[in-house]
Amino acid sequence: MRKTNIYKTKIFPDIQNQTDSRKVSIDKVGVKNIKYPIIVADKHNKCQPTIAEINLFVDLPHHYRGTHMSRFVEVLNQYHKENFIDNLEEILKEIKNRLKADAAYLELSFPYFIIKKAPVSKIASSVNYDCYFRASLKDVFEFWIGVKVPVTTLCPCSKEISDYGAHNQRSIVSVWVHYTEFVWLEDLIELTEQSCSCDIYPLLKRVDEKYVTEKAYDNPMFVEDIVRELSIKLSKDSRIMHYDIEVESYESIHNHNAFAKKSE
Amino acid sequence: MRKTNIYKTKIFPDIQNQTDSRKVSIDKVGVKNIKYPIIVADKHNKCQPTIAEINLFVDLPHHYRGTHMSRFVEVLNQYHKENFIDNLEEILKEIKNRLKADAAYLELSFPYFIIKKAPVSKIASSVNYDCYFRASLKDVFEFWIGVKVPVTTLCPCSKEISDYGAHNQRSIVSVWVHYTEFVWLEDLIELTEQSCSCDIYPLLKRVDEKYVTEKAYDNPMFVEDIVRELSIKLSKDSRIMHYDIEVESYESIHNHNAFAKKSE
Amino acid sequence: MRKTNIYKTKIFPDIQNQTDSRKVSIDKVGVKNIKYPIIVADKHNKCQPTIAEINLFVDLPHHYRGTHMSRFVEVLNQYHKENFIDNLEEILKEIKNRLKADAAYLELSFPYFIIKKAPVSKIASSVNYDCYFRASLKDVFEFWIGVKVPVTTLCPCSKEISDYGAHNQRSIVSVWVHYTEFVWLEDLIELTEQSCSCDIYPLLKRVDEKYVTEKAYDNPMFVEDIVRELSIKLSKDSRIMHYDIEVESYESIHNHNAFAKKSE
Amino acid sequence: MRKTNIYKTKIFPDIQNQTDSRKVSIDKVGVKNIKYPIIVADKHNKCQPTIAEINLFVDLPHHYRGTHMSRFVEVLNQYHKENFIDNLEEILKEIKNRLKADAAYLELSFPYFIIKKAPVSKIASSVNYDCYFRASLKDVFEFWIGVKVPVTTLCPCSKEISDYGAHNQRSIVSVWVHYTEFVWLEDLIELTEQSCSCDIYPLLKRVDEKYVTEKAYDNPMFVEDIVRELSIKLSKDSRIMHYDIEVESYESIHNHNAFAKKSE
Repeated sequence: MRKTNIYKTKIFPDIQNQTDSRKVSIDKVGVKNIKYPIIVADKHNKCQPTIAEINLFVDLPHHYRGTHMSRFVEVLNQYHKENFIDNLEEILKEIKNRLKADAAYLELSFPYFIIKKAPVSKIASSVNYDCYFRASLKDVFEFWIGVKVPVTTLCPCSKEISDYGAHNQRSIVSVWVHYTEFVWLEDLIELTEQSCSCDIYPLLKRVDEKYVTEKAYDNPMFVEDIVRELSIKLSKDSRIMHYDIEVESYESIHNHNAFAKKSE
Repeated sequence: MRKTNIYKTKIFPDIQNQTDSRKVSIDKVGVKNIKYPIIVADKHNKCQPTIAEINLFVDLPHHYRGTHMSRFVEVLNQYHKENFIDNLEEILKEIKNRLKADAAYLELSFPYFIIKKAPVSKIASSVNYDCYFRASLKDVFEFWIGVKVPVTTLCPCSKEISDYGAHNQRSIVSVWVHYTEFVWLEDLIELTEQSCSCDIYPLLKRVDEKYVTEKAYDNPMFVEDIVRELSIKLSKDSRIMHYDIEVESYESIHNHNAFAKKSE
Repeated sequence: MRKTNIYKTKIFPDIQNQTDSRKVSIDKVGVKNIKYPIIVADKHNKCQPTIAEINLFVDLPHHYRGTHMSRFVEVLNQYHKENFIDNLEEILKEIKNRLKADAAYLELSFPYFIIKKAPVSKIASSVNYDCYFRASLKDVFEFWIGVKVPVTTLCPCSKEISDYGAHNQRSIVSVWVHYTEFVWLEDLIELTEQSCSCDIYPLLKRVDEKYVTEKAYDNPMFVEDIVRELSIKLSKDSRIMHYDIEVESYESIHNHNAFAKKSE
Repeated sequence: MRKTNIYKTKIFPDIQNQTDSRKVSIDKVGVKNIKYPIIVADKHNKCQPTIAEINLFVDLPHHYRGTHMSRFVEVLNQYHKENFIDNLEEILKEIKNRLKADAAYLELSFPYFIIKKAPVSKIASSVNYDCYFRASLKDVFEFWIGVKVPVTTLCPCSKEISDYGAHNQRSIVSVWVHYTEFVWLEDLIELTEQSCSCDIYPLLKRVDEKYVTEKAYDNPMFVEDIVRELSIKLSKDSRIMHYDIEVESYESIHNHNAFAKKSE
């Protein structure tokens, strides 16, 4: 196909900047699944380097043909070496300006490590939690943090009706909070681990395994119980405005999962 | 631990039925990731057997300790041999009754096959689409259908600024609609495939490959363009009350994806 | 870019057929992740329609530039309505001929359903197993079948050292066999379910839940025990020439998995 | 159930250490999917902190009942702060000793970041590659490194038969090498990116997008071509004893993938 000379002279038209006549605005447009090394705040060690999967979006007014995707990455280049959580609002402001947008959105997920001691032997090891930030800036800045906490659930019904034993399993508690006053991921994890049959450990010696086995048996909980216990704790916490709780239990007696959720 | 005689005599207490004093109601509780063979309506062949991944939930009033998970599966046993889409409201009614709930929710995802002819050679083959039903019954019955449609997107900017060629890639258009009047999955797929650079085929001979290559080059589209073209079509369709459109493009020049979404 | 007239006259060159001078043969070339409706043999109902994810490959001699991918799909079109397992060798012969190859390979994975009765209440429900066929035809025809069986494992150490209870969890046993004489998927599943703490059910009433809880507690097994019990059964089976066993246990007390494997 | 006094006095029996009479040895037993922060060698910055998913196994002689899973984590605790690749053999020796095993196996996968400059604008950004180590120590130490490299493939057939354009897509080249003399991940990535239609960039301005679009169009390659080009380069490299190459192309015109592989 022939091309007019303007391409030869390398003055490129800005297609994205073209006026769009279809009168259709777009809620969110941007980039998804960018992996980037970032730094997050750590309650005990000031900061922790980790690797995030990042989504960045803006809204697009009806009169623009498209957004400029490369600018999202330019903003990440600017900020990824600083503590992300301290700069989220600034990052979103920067994105709004660069993209001439009314609203900017950021979604982060990253593994976060905490040193956890075995309950009896006290041997310390690293355990990872999948953590999340979700921030948006339109007229106001809104921010949510989330974490997936693996826990043990032991079935109250199974314990009650059986002469011995009780089925138990690994369950995942996903908790998201929208706060006014800063809440550490560590605090959210702690509240969650206090709301299950027993919490999970990276390393257990025999004395520890006896402890967690008996603790779980002494604290039978349905997925419903975890949602309730955790929602009571979160409702009492003055720093937290809204929360989402989801519990999914990988039932050891079924090939499907038990599930419960509550938002407030 | 010792057990009182009641266990020996096999009169089991109904733990789930116990009164809960915590005054915390639960939004959704139930079963997730049940795989089940089902039958769905097929525009051209009346019905199509497929395999669904199913989530079933009810709400739980604050005064009940737990729900009875096994009853969800009992309802599936009753209905899975009938055409699912014709019975969704009845299934949810049945679940509400069995679980003594105020609201019931069903989520289905399943592969759905359509015979598609190559554009020039006209050779017919099966192509699969991931499809979705989402139904709820509280006071009123609400129903959404969804489908993920793989398409080709060819970048308008890349075409415009390059002397030859243009980067293109596989993209996934996810479209969900809430309708008043029945909409076939086939209709939704057709509207989507008319809103991209070129649609995708299971089998292409050389004459067909020439056709799709040139068609994509003749129809460059950003993810934003697909959202707009499809939203215009869906807005015009009197059967459709609400829709969600998401387009994710697996950019051939990046290791991350371009994304756009719109709901109405 | 200019094109010589031959394109206008639509006599397309066969690029794949071009001679390659690099003297590099290729082990496997073909298509991956094709979803196709197929029919498999069912021990109790003669046949079962299901949906397979299919990989098809051939070897490529050094002197050919490429293989003709569309022909793999043409072969599927021919055979997908017949009982696949009865036609595997014929399918591979057909592929070898169509692609002028010395070797042809087929990999199938599909969900397979079995009606399973609860152990005490005897209520029957469908339960799904991920199943696999792997066939190759070079000079001789070789065939493997595989299945992933979800089971309960209860930890012998946890039981022994704890005053009450024992941690247990969902575990997945993956077993592959290469046989001389036909082995039903049902047989392979049965042998596997006889080699664990307790097997898993789609639906359990309270009487059943008591049964599986106590059965698991009465049969504590490490992943190592499952590998050993199953390998002894498979070794004794005169129909089976080789096997691979893998057991992965989603530990309810850890966020990582216990694993064991054996091949023979 | 009653327990004898030894449990009360907390002298726990070592169940794993019990003698097994079944005469079945186990090929591999250990832990899977442990996430752990580690440090890997970086060609340009000496070392790079990253997060690995780790599998650790040993063989189990027929006369032992089970292995001691917690010891694998204890070894990770010891070594994760040192440069992993420098200590792999020592780590495996340590595991063999701790577990009294004849063979030890380690599998690591981790994201690895390289600063990459856009081809024309020269803007530098981080791009991630999924990387792998696989090490074993029985009588001798064996070591493989691997990397998944996303690239652009442009179809030679599509280009040849079409009057304009050519379908292209993101493809993943997985390459594993077993070397005698150290090979940097960066070297392996560079060799791979030199063997495709065009390599992929984290950030491209318009001048760069024109460049990559035209470069891909000028270098049409089938998955077969990539396997051949890369295998020629690896065969010539005196440091490399064996290699596995797999190329999977997410075809922009199909919903399935093209695939080719070669091992030597």
